[in-house]
Amino acid sequence: MITRVGIPSVWESTAEKYREAFIVCLLHQIPRSGSGMNPSMSGAVFTAQDPRTGAILGSYADADDETIATACRQAADAAPALRDDHLRVALLRESARMLRAAGPELHELCGRETGLPPARLEGELERTCVQLELMADVVAEGSYVEAMIDTADPSAPVAPRPDLRRMLIPIGPVAVFGASNFPYAFSVAGGDTASALAAGCPVVVKAHPSHPGTSGQVAAIVLAAVEEVGLPSGTFSLVHGASSRVGEALARGEEIEAVAFTGSLGGGRALFDVAASRPRPIPVFAEMGSVNPTLITPAALRERAAAVAEGLTASVTGGTGQFCTKPGVVLVPEGDAGASFVDEVVRRLEAVEPAPLLNARIHEALREAVAELDDDPDVERLTRGGDAGANRGAFLHAPVAYSVDGAVAAGRTDLLQERFGPLVLFVRYEGIDAAADVVDALEGQLTATVHAEGEELDDLRPIISRLEQKAGRVVFDGFPTGVAVTYAMQHGGPYPATTAPAHTSVGTTAIRRFQRPVTWQNAPVGVLPEALLDDNPLGIWRAVNGQLTRDPV
Amino acid sequence: MITRVGIPSVWESTAEKYREAFIVCLLHQIPRSGSGMNPSMSGAVFTAQDPRTGAILGSYADADDETIATACRQAADAAPALRDDHLRVALLRESARMLRAAGPELHELCGRETGLPPARLEGELERTCVQLELMADVVAEGSYVEAMIDTADPSAPVAPRPDLRRMLIPIGPVAVFGASNFPYAFSVAGGDTASALAAGCPVVVKAHPSHPGTSGQVAAIVLAAVEEVGLPSGTFSLVHGASSRVGEALARGEEIEAVAFTGSLGGGRALFDVAASRPRPIPVFAEMGSVNPTLITPAALRERAAAVAEGLTASVTGGTGQFCTKPGVVLVPEGDAGASFVDEVVRRLEAVEPAPLLNARIHEALREAVAELDDDPDVERLTRGGDAGANRGAFLHAPVAYSVDGAVAAGRTDLLQERFGPLVLFVRYEGIDAAADVVDALEGQLTATVHAEGEELDDLRPIISRLEQKAGRVVFDGFPTGVAVTYAMQHGGPYPATTAPAHTSVGTTAIRRFQRPVTWQNAPVGVLPEALLDDNPLGIWRAVNGQLTRDPV
Repeated sequence: MITRVGIPSVWESTAEKYREAFIVCLLHQIPRSGSGMNPSMSGAVFTAQDPRTGAILGSYADADDETIATACRQAADAAPALRDDHLRVALLRESARMLRAAGPELHELCGRETGLPPARLEGELERTCVQLELMADVVAEGSYVEAMIDTADPSAPVAPRPDLRRMLIPIGPVAVFGASNFPYAFSVAGGDTASALAAGCPVVVKAHPSHPGTSGQVAAIVLAAVEEVGLPSGTFSLVHGASSRVGEALARGEEIEAVAFTGSLGGGRALFDVAASRPRPIPVFAEMGSVNPTLITPAALRERAAAVAEGLTASVTGGTGQFCTKPGVVLVPEGDAGASFVDEVVRRLEAVEPAPLLNARIHEALREAVAELDDDPDVERLTRGGDAGANRGAFLHAPVAYSVDGAVAAGRTDLLQERFGPLVLFVRYEGIDAAADVVDALEGQLTATVHAEGEELDDLRPIISRLEQKAGRVVFDGFPTGVAVTYAMQHGGPYPATTAPAHTSVGTTAIRRFQRPVTWQNAPVGVLPEALLDDNPLGIWRAVNGQLTRDPV
Repeated sequence: MITRVGIPSVWESTAEKYREAFIVCLLHQIPRSGSGMNPSMSGAVFTAQDPRTGAILGSYADADDETIATACRQAADAAPALRDDHLRVALLRESARMLRAAGPELHELCGRETGLPPARLEGELERTCVQLELMADVVAEGSYVEAMIDTADPSAPVAPRPDLRRMLIPIGPVAVFGASNFPYAFSVAGGDTASALAAGCPVVVKAHPSHPGTSGQVAAIVLAAVEEVGLPSGTFSLVHGASSRVGEALARGEEIEAVAFTGSLGGGRALFDVAASRPRPIPVFAEMGSVNPTLITPAALRERAAAVAEGLTASVTGGTGQFCTKPGVVLVPEGDAGASFVDEVVRRLEAVEPAPLLNARIHEALREAVAELDDDPDVERLTRGGDAGANRGAFLHAPVAYSVDGAVAAGRTDLLQERFGPLVLFVRYEGIDAAADVVDALEGQLTATVHAEGEELDDLRPIISRLEQKAGRVVFDGFPTGVAVTYAMQHGGPYPATTAPAHTSVGTTAIRRFQRPVTWQNAPVGVLPEALLDDNPLGIWRAVNGQLTRDPV
């Protein structure tokens, strides 16, 4: 049962429309009064807390199985209406417009639920809106269906070739799992939702229990936009849940065709296993994090140690170290220059105020990681600050840095795992071959970063090549945090960074996750989609007999 | 131990050289005499049989675990060399040239192992060569890496945008499982191998035990081409195996990054489950078959019943009904026209001589399917002929047709499953809504076919739309068998037709299965691949700031 207790009381939108839509959104999920409790109702209730104080902000109930099944069914029913590109463009743009308008109110609650400062929330909401609009632009342009036309060829080699016309169509309803660490950009109306809607897929979101109020508000806005543009309400829905039962039930939803997830390795793998074990398996696009190895060379230190130290500190502590792309493992040269660089970073880290983690679980996991590394004889603790909030109920923690010898790290893959929060492990390497050994010990990564000078590139080529094999994005002389929403972005990587290395969850090609090709053979004109008509009425790029063109056939 | 001793240094297509390579290919799978059994060696030996007579043609040993591990390791070692597009183009073209030259000899053994007639084998080998050459053309043209460049934009919305350059790179070693029913085109040097090599991935083939000799011969030719063009021998290897242990060991191979499979639902799903349960899961592109529903309308029967009957008969019996795209469920209108059409097809089917199934297992499965349908009170047997070989050791069977009422079929999905071999089930429907109910009962399909007249299209739109949702290819006024190797082909479809509906195993986009994107951020020129350099030295299509162009940046 999705009662979303307490949301209306905090929902103070000036736009009457939102409130109406939101109430509808609530009501259509709630079993008719008098129907009693669903037998599958777990009754689990969870609370949202202010990470800065530990204060309870509201109580929410896990969705029951019937609610989840209804959301999936309504999504499937809405799918045909979503084939209209114009309506989806309107939905994406209207959602962005409404979200922008609601910014101040959203940030108020979101700040309380996440502990994130206003400037960050403003930037993130704008990013979320830009993302929705960029997806709308891609759909409006139209070439995203990758149309291909092979004209009939009676004298083709082997056998006469029929007329074949291929394009990508939406796969069907998508289950999106909101992330805790980006309450807008990777959550209810974030990149997964934007790209699924762009592809033409209805979306059922499982809200992250860390910011359920914000999730409800954003969902209400998207639903208002759905109503505004005239799409069926099943186009988009939201279910709450803190227990894994809710996520599993959604991933098992009969009508669900794909899962998009951003979160922990444990959570992503669990969903992957559920989806793979269905009678009809479905793909899971899980982005599960990374240590984002960063290699700093002697020449880079010689030329710009201070700048790298400043940037690295910001990259490690931004968002309280809770970005998927936080540099968690930093390779620095043995010797004086490396030691003094590390000292400089440590000084800077110690000057950063303890900041709130997003929730009690993440706070506790960081405390455990710190305790474990403190006890590890191979690892040296470099910073003094630590937990700074538990004793008064808040989820505050200071930045933490450790150091380990490269030869040791190369043999201990357990050290090279993601630790969420403002924690960095320096790995001291003696020469580039030793650094390469550490790289070889790494698993799949979202990103890899190299700070080097041109004179070193020839020597670095083998290690760069290894990093390309391990990661989805290779950054030079910069920092991996900050994932631009654009065409050529790749936010993904080999397992365990993701469960789908061939795809990205940021950038315009994220749409491809939710499309599949269909070929029409010798189809009459009345049957063909517009994208495949001879005269190319949409004016899109198409491969005609293998040649890209916007010309008519 | 994959020693590949004695593969001729330069392959000459004389009978003598050919035989040498073939013998070596056999031997390298069989433990040296006196070397003792490997502990992991199952010792399983299997035989190839002539389906026309049941005669034993040769004995082969299952690969042991060490052989499989060696093949995988050598494949991984070969991967860097395969990044050279020119060498891969040469390999694909040279393989085609050598296969063509070896045609007559290949067909001799292949005909014995498969029972397929010479004309079919000649056509299939040519198709295989054309496929290799088309893949070579795509690699030579170069745009298949889908290069994208976003130039730096300091004033981008939200945050300054770095220079981002993205392209697809090969994923790494691919395990290819040869199919029984296309001993060339979907086997050792078939579409999966061709597209994996085109992508830049080394290949380890698990030969289908139904034609091990042919597999060995083809492998020897590909290996000779590998040597000829100067690629490492790990580029391509072949392991034999009749037990599921071999396939499982290969799919679990540490270095394997993807599995490509064509075969049964049971086999494909088993591999999918193995791959999904790995510590590091990998994708499985399994093409598992289909009933290829075919809808015939009253107007189509009015206009051209005889032509449809003739084409359908050929499509059902071609390759002894062992095409993945064989029309297995044919919807015909209730009433006189439908009845007389069915009679006509039955007459034609009964005139087709019993033909050999590919192997004892397929023959037995068909006999069981026939026995089961014969016993089914809902189903009416229409043809007289049946098993025509078992009593003398051959795997011959006559074409078989059944009929069932549409209302019954709509409630019995068990009837709407693939039955391999020359078997067709006619489903009689009373009006288009009843036909739609049958379509709704279908699972995912490789193809769906509609025989109709223009005047009916408006009424048919809803059912056509449903067929598009169920299938990868929708055929109009034709037959689904015959899958053109070209750009716009889609040979795939929703589960259980495949485990990867977003992909195709035929056509040039099959290459995409074996690629993943990498983005370089602010990379120095010396690090960037040629495809991403400003001046576009390869002259390929690239999306620059979202606009397709071949111009320099």
